[in-house]
Amino acid sequence: MKKLWFVYALLIGMFLVYVLNYKLQQANTTDPWETAGLRGNIEDTYVMVTFQSGIDYWKSVLKGFEDAAEELNISVEYHGSTQHNANEQMTVLEQVIAKKPAGIAISAVNSKLLTATINKAVESGIPVVLFDSGAPDSKAYSFLGTDNYDAGIEAARKMAELTGAKGAVAIITTPDQHNHQERTDGFRDTIRTDYPAMQLIAVKDGRGDQVASRAATEQILSQYPQLAGIFATESNGGIGVAEAVEAHKGNSNSPKIISFDTDKGTLDLVKEGKIAATMAQGTWNMGYWSLMELFHLHRDLAADPSAYANHKPLPVPDLVDTGIDVVTRANVDSYYAK
Amino acid sequence: MKKLWFVYALLIGMFLVYVLNYKLQQANTTDPWETAGLRGNIEDTYVMVTFQSGIDYWKSVLKGFEDAAEELNISVEYHGSTQHNANEQMTVLEQVIAKKPAGIAISAVNSKLLTATINKAVESGIPVVLFDSGAPDSKAYSFLGTDNYDAGIEAARKMAELTGAKGAVAIITTPDQHNHQERTDGFRDTIRTDYPAMQLIAVKDGRGDQVASRAATEQILSQYPQLAGIFATESNGGIGVAEAVEAHKGNSNSPKIISFDTDKGTLDLVKEGKIAATMAQGTWNMGYWSLMELFHLHRDLAADPSAYANHKPLPVPDLVDTGIDVVTRANVDSYYAK
Repeated sequence: MKKLWFVYALLIGMFLVYVLNYKLQQANTTDPWETAGLRGNIEDTYVMVTFQSGIDYWKSVLKGFEDAAEELNISVEYHGSTQHNANEQMTVLEQVIAKKPAGIAISAVNSKLLTATINKAVESGIPVVLFDSGAPDSKAYSFLGTDNYDAGIEAARKMAELTGAKGAVAIITTPDQHNHQERTDGFRDTIRTDYPAMQLIAVKDGRGDQVASRAATEQILSQYPQLAGIFATESNGGIGVAEAVEAHKGNSNSPKIISFDTDKGTLDLVKEGKIAATMAQGTWNMGYWSLMELFHLHRDLAADPSAYANHKPLPVPDLVDTGIDVVTRANVDSYYAK
Repeated sequence: MKKLWFVYALLIGMFLVYVLNYKLQQANTTDPWETAGLRGNIEDTYVMVTFQSGIDYWKSVLKGFEDAAEELNISVEYHGSTQHNANEQMTVLEQVIAKKPAGIAISAVNSKLLTATINKAVESGIPVVLFDSGAPDSKAYSFLGTDNYDAGIEAARKMAELTGAKGAVAIITTPDQHNHQERTDGFRDTIRTDYPAMQLIAVKDGRGDQVASRAATEQILSQYPQLAGIFATESNGGIGVAEAVEAHKGNSNSPKIISFDTDKGTLDLVKEGKIAATMAQGTWNMGYWSLMELFHLHRDLAADPSAYANHKPLPVPDLVDTGIDVVTRANVDSYYAK
């Protein structure tokens, strides 16, 4: 009898093992890894390369890049030159290329000086896209960034709305930077064409600097106390402009200020009502869609390294305009970094 | 003793159940449906809407749309007006809206007449993007298509390469269509600015028609027998131009022909060497990335229908330039429909 009970116990145990093991296998055979959705390999590392890598501006781009990586089950790294320096960025890029990543998204500190190194990456089979600051003559597959002329148009339209489309306006900009020149041109052309009761009376160099922009603004305000508005094409300048307008209160008309970008300092001034509006670039989109494009390029090139050399049409667009949003007191809370 | 064996058996059985059940739960909690990859619901239907829905041109766009659907595990439908008719397309769009799809990608036959119906879709919570032919004043979230001015620039560069950058050239176009005017402008401006030894001697209306384009070309050839090249801004015209040049062989110089798009008739003439090059639009990209954008918009709006009304920045770019490729005898085989 002892032995019989033992056999029963064994049979019951084996049956349970069998049943549960079967269930476990069922769960494994419907493994969706192979068929379901856009999904990469967590061991593939994609790299984002910037310059002045510590500044706030890149945070939202990197967030987009990381969000896409999480969705696609791939890995990312962030590198960049600490300074606004082409040689340093070239060295960083060389080091990244040496590790043979699955893809590189880079914002070129200098389009001409970086082109050769970018081409080296492409020629060695690494997919490369440019974001924010491009290198149009390089072999990179795509560019994702702001249409700065269009951003100037949007700023002019907002200025017209803020000023009742009349009066004198001025621009504080950084004339030697191409993207700032484009913002200036878009603003100027729109005022000239669409708003005959507005006059652009001054375009001053603020050197991308708070103090210089403040000084330039004070000069304009003393000459034109009835100024209706000022457009600052970058955010350090915008803060300087706000300081100058604050200091001149009472002596002048308190012109409406439109600034650029969404660093904390600028957003705080929007919230306080000292800056009427700021132009937000699609930074999250730059990062997110850069990685989405690299993922597709990598997949093609992994299957056939000579795909594009053999004239296969590219599976990604040439150029992505990541858009511009106007941030005011009404929606400023959505733009603080999460 | 009997009872003791029974207790042992029960304990062994329960222990095994516990262990295996634990393993099973482990397998379930790493359920990848929730975390892995970009993946939608096969019951969500996204709709592509065109006009002249039967023409070859849309095939590659639809292929891109379908390829994206397969990758994302979502469903698609194709609708469109059979004619080049805004009222018919409006009716089709109304019917699509009534079925409350997960998203709509539409190419507007007439940007002004379609705007109200597009806005109705957006206002009812359906994400809408435009491709190929936009509606800039509508509330659609994005536009994906060719930069036609840029396509004209590329055509001019190719023409310079084919003609040794010298001699007289002409354009056969459809002046009342805006995208064709842009192609003409890009070509004209580039010849004027970059190639001083080339002269644009005629821009003629080919009415998007093979016979009219042939007649226009014959007229030009009889006047300028030494013509070096002709750019046709659309493909019916390109075939007419090729016929005229073929008929004038011997009397004239056999000018190089650059055409537009990649329908079979045009590709065959490229293969035969009668058309030197044709400008291929990024049609697959239009379809693929339209659906990729709609998928992201739908996910946001499903989670929070007022997301964008409450100023959440859009998760998709404003504008996607799907690019242009130059197709010649060397790479023509890659462009036949698969």
